[in-house]
Amino acid sequence: MQHPHNRSAEPGKVYLVGAGPGDPELITVRGLSLLRQAEVVVYDRLVHPALLEEVPPTAERIYVGKTPGRHALPQEKIQALLIDRARRNRIVVRLKGGDPFVFGRGGEEARALAQAGIPFEIVPGVTSAIAVPAYAGIPVTQRGVAGAFAVVTGHRCDLETLALDWSALARIDTLVLLMSLRRLPELTRLLRENGRAPETPVAVISNGTTTAQQHVVGTLADIAERATSLNTPATVIVGEVVRLANELAWFHPAP
Amino acid sequence: MQHPHNRSAEPGKVYLVGAGPGDPELITVRGLSLLRQAEVVVYDRLVHPALLEEVPPTAERIYVGKTPGRHALPQEKIQALLIDRARRNRIVVRLKGGDPFVFGRGGEEARALAQAGIPFEIVPGVTSAIAVPAYAGIPVTQRGVAGAFAVVTGHRCDLETLALDWSALARIDTLVLLMSLRRLPELTRLLRENGRAPETPVAVISNGTTTAQQHVVGTLADIAERATSLNTPATVIVGEVVRLANELAWFHPAP
Repeated sequence: MQHPHNRSAEPGKVYLVGAGPGDPELITVRGLSLLRQAEVVVYDRLVHPALLEEVPPTAERIYVGKTPGRHALPQEKIQALLIDRARRNRIVVRLKGGDPFVFGRGGEEARALAQAGIPFEIVPGVTSAIAVPAYAGIPVTQRGVAGAFAVVTGHRCDLETLALDWSALARIDTLVLLMSLRRLPELTRLLRENGRAPETPVAVISNGTTTAQQHVVGTLADIAERATSLNTPATVIVGEVVRLANELAWFHPAP
Repeated sequence: MQHPHNRSAEPGKVYLVGAGPGDPELITVRGLSLLRQAEVVVYDRLVHPALLEEVPPTAERIYVGKTPGRHALPQEKIQALLIDRARRNRIVVRLKGGDPFVFGRGGEEARALAQAGIPFEIVPGVTSAIAVPAYAGIPVTQRGVAGAFAVVTGHRCDLETLALDWSALARIDTLVLLMSLRRLPELTRLLRENGRAPETPVAVISNGTTTAQQHVVGTLADIAERATSLNTPATVIVGEVVRLANELAWFHPAP
């Protein structure tokens, strides 16, 4: 596909690219084009291996996610790395799961680049918050059922998550909780304490959009117990739209 | 890119494909692949012409959006059309702006297909709600600034929009209003009446992610007046993250 502008990648620039929710074919055309031009790729834990196969063999690949028993590279070091490689005049792709501006710390990386005077581009991605429910047959909005949706993460430090306005969040038609599997007992209790009905349907989807996708449906009262067998990464969706999951089921990963 | 599964398009199936927010390179790899295999394409007003150029010349193209002085094809007729073409054993792509499950009536189309026994697939897209702010330098979430975001539309009939819980929406850190330009005076008043501070920063972005992108920044008190010169389609973003727009500006469409 030709774009009216020159869309070649530029050396000395950092591209903050959303890899999408898991299914590697859900990366954007722009994102894939940049991966294929990359000289340096800095990537996280949730990036599908098929995407890294698109990177030229000569490119430098830097993994900055968590490994068993080790922490991820600290955020400041990731930012320093991006700045360093851009100053060496490389085409730098910073590849993040989902969308770079949805709880991806992309905003912090963009600020660090701006403050260092490094040119950058944001390449949005398909967010797990919408696509993972979609692969489980759940639309985040539906006429007559849900006219608004909100997205939060359970991954932040305790204080920041607890400081959210849960009495407001509890009243949004559809609520998506990203990276919240381990905190599900606490988050479902918070929603119930703030007035959300205990019988509200809830789905937990593990490894969404991939061949390993699994999901469990329950209610705000029992989902924390029902979902204990699922693995991370998981997306939690709360609201009446979850009732559509059976009728709209279309994605059946091979067993 | 090869996927472990057979990802060829199947005849007699309907693909509900998100075209993304405007920039044609923000369509997914999967979406573009399906467009190139399509035998029938049913598309809306906000789909970029460059995407239609990817459709084989032999394919049937059916425009179902609004035209000046004429209404769009009614929803029931769109659904009947999809079912008819699938029953004729065609590869049918239903191409929608943004993501098919974010106020795109994709859920209604999927239900109609399920009820008619037509196989379908959802191909999520990059939503304007996240990507349009990103192209204006505004992350919908930012550590220490916004730990939640919510999305609504002003495009629904009066009753459905007014029936939303505005007192809850007014308290979400970042609020994105899609297709709300014409109702901006009413929606900003609703937010103020429900306790959102009048000095809250607001951005209105017109033709986001395209070469025609324009934006205006103001506050909840004055944005309706400031934005009168902008054209639809427009995305409105309310919250402290809007203050990052200057620092993170990176997309400068040619004049």
